[in-house]
Amino acid sequence: MQIETPYLLFLGDARDALAAKTGQGIVDWRPDAVAGQMRLPGCGADLGVRELTIAKAARAGARTFVIGAVNPGGVLPQAWRSHVIEALEAGLDVASGMHVRLAGIPGIAETAHRLGRRLFDVRHPAGTFHTASGRKRTGKRLLTVGTDCSVGKKYTALAIERELVRRGVDVDYRATGQTGILIAGSGIAIDAVVSDFAAGAAEALSPDAGADHWDVVEGQGSLFHPSFAGVSLALLHGTQPDTFVVCHEPTRRTMRNVETPIARIEDVISETTALGRLTNPDVRCAGIALDTSALSENDAKRVIDETASQFEVPACDPVRQGVGVIVDGLP
Amino acid sequence: MQIETPYLLFLGDARDALAAKTGQGIVDWRPDAVAGQMRLPGCGADLGVRELTIAKAARAGARTFVIGAVNPGGVLPQAWRSHVIEALEAGLDVASGMHVRLAGIPGIAETAHRLGRRLFDVRHPAGTFHTASGRKRTGKRLLTVGTDCSVGKKYTALAIERELVRRGVDVDYRATGQTGILIAGSGIAIDAVVSDFAAGAAEALSPDAGADHWDVVEGQGSLFHPSFAGVSLALLHGTQPDTFVVCHEPTRRTMRNVETPIARIEDVISETTALGRLTNPDVRCAGIALDTSALSENDAKRVIDETASQFEVPACDPVRQGVGVIVDGLP
Repeated sequence: MQIETPYLLFLGDARDALAAKTGQGIVDWRPDAVAGQMRLPGCGADLGVRELTIAKAARAGARTFVIGAVNPGGVLPQAWRSHVIEALEAGLDVASGMHVRLAGIPGIAETAHRLGRRLFDVRHPAGTFHTASGRKRTGKRLLTVGTDCSVGKKYTALAIERELVRRGVDVDYRATGQTGILIAGSGIAIDAVVSDFAAGAAEALSPDAGADHWDVVEGQGSLFHPSFAGVSLALLHGTQPDTFVVCHEPTRRTMRNVETPIARIEDVISETTALGRLTNPDVRCAGIALDTSALSENDAKRVIDETASQFEVPACDPVRQGVGVIVDGLP
Repeated sequence: MQIETPYLLFLGDARDALAAKTGQGIVDWRPDAVAGQMRLPGCGADLGVRELTIAKAARAGARTFVIGAVNPGGVLPQAWRSHVIEALEAGLDVASGMHVRLAGIPGIAETAHRLGRRLFDVRHPAGTFHTASGRKRTGKRLLTVGTDCSVGKKYTALAIERELVRRGVDVDYRATGQTGILIAGSGIAIDAVVSDFAAGAAEALSPDAGADHWDVVEGQGSLFHPSFAGVSLALLHGTQPDTFVVCHEPTRRTMRNVETPIARIEDVISETTALGRLTNPDVRCAGIALDTSALSENDAKRVIDETASQFEVPACDPVRQGVGVIVDGLP
């Protein structure tokens, strides 16, 4: 599965910038893949790219109509549906990160089938997976892990990929969530895989590669999040990373959507190392990425320095400082 | 979901006893639920119960036609299909632990729908689950865990349930795999749940209960099995057990279907305790259940005694000795 670019990013009537964060992520990380945006009356988001109609986008070479916004309730609004069909008729494939399947919406599947267009429901993995073998694969792998959900695992992985590209290293970003998949154009929504096959899907996601090739794998959840730790462990075992980067938000007190206290960095390092050894005996922590957006510049600098000193690994805020110090230390 | 008894156990033309082990498990653990067996010409298995036709079973009060055998390839043989339809027409529901869904086989879904019968595809969880909350529930819980797959987790849990019943304790066996579900008449095939919801499904499986009530939960996989550790961790977090029993086969060297060495008992105890604390800070090991079927009686006794002594918890072979010593120590 490879979603073809350029994309026309459809924002519908997204109420604000947050509702269009998938589209924003694509613009931020893959501007070359974006032909433009399309907005409906009342849209409160603006990605700052060229405004296009479907017809203009098709003429400009756009290949995929990407639903780059979410709608409260996760369903496809009636008003959006006619635009999806118009895009199919104009020659574009359609990709969506919504929970609802495009293929399940009356009119859309039939139109796509009739015209030979592809529908990408990136939250719903296509194809089947094997159970994981645990066999060691060739090539190098980095996994971002977290003290919680939503602590910068995707951002950090993308920043590391970009820095490796800048340094001329052979690297692939391996996406495991819907926004990451739309950014990369491929990937597997690991939390949507049947649990028996989750580690196997992670193995399939980063296949054998050249000895100097890096796969930078987007982490999910946390080994210490009571809802999602199983997903995180399957991803750890299947990825068999050589190195991992711990992502953390230093002001957060409880984990997302539950009452569990946020995990400690030392526990995440020790458990990721202990459990990760099962499929890669040499796994080690390559650094700590801190989301210090809630801190002043001085406080952020202090927390970053203290963290690096306490754990004796490189630490940084990827947004404030980039990830150069972490990439410097990669094997 | 509750599968109604008595069962007519259909063995088809199962080639040998191993192919009918689901049926054998039901006879062993729930003889009162079995009206009889039905076999086709060439069947090499015999559960030692009354031989019945579908018509006779219906007259004898059987409520569910249970496919108690597997077929190489996991599909429903053409010859079996007509018997499934005959059972539906005779007034029975149908339950299957096969990978293939009954509801997907031409003729079966239509017949069931027309007659108002129920189809139970126990490998395919029905209904939807929430993501886990991590909230502590009332009642007491025991989970069997393992150094590998197929080391007696189901057998040990069933033996503990039976011993607790014998002692007059209020207890439920909570099944997490297809054979266990057919034995219990309900449960959730946890490895077939989408990984995002696996821990939530485990929470749903053992709801709030009275302070003296025990849920004995059938474990799956191993925290150290590279294919299934994510399933095991989701089940551990969702179950939030007060106690766990480690199941182990002392002569095995590598894990099932992979080249990974079998886990050490000490590692399973320490990781189950460390990770289990997230949802139950008081989790502790209640004992070790050894499958010593490959050892002589003297060797078995020596291994069991050494294990109890080394780990300072009760140890036994549930088949040779029962699980009394483990149940004696439950809180």
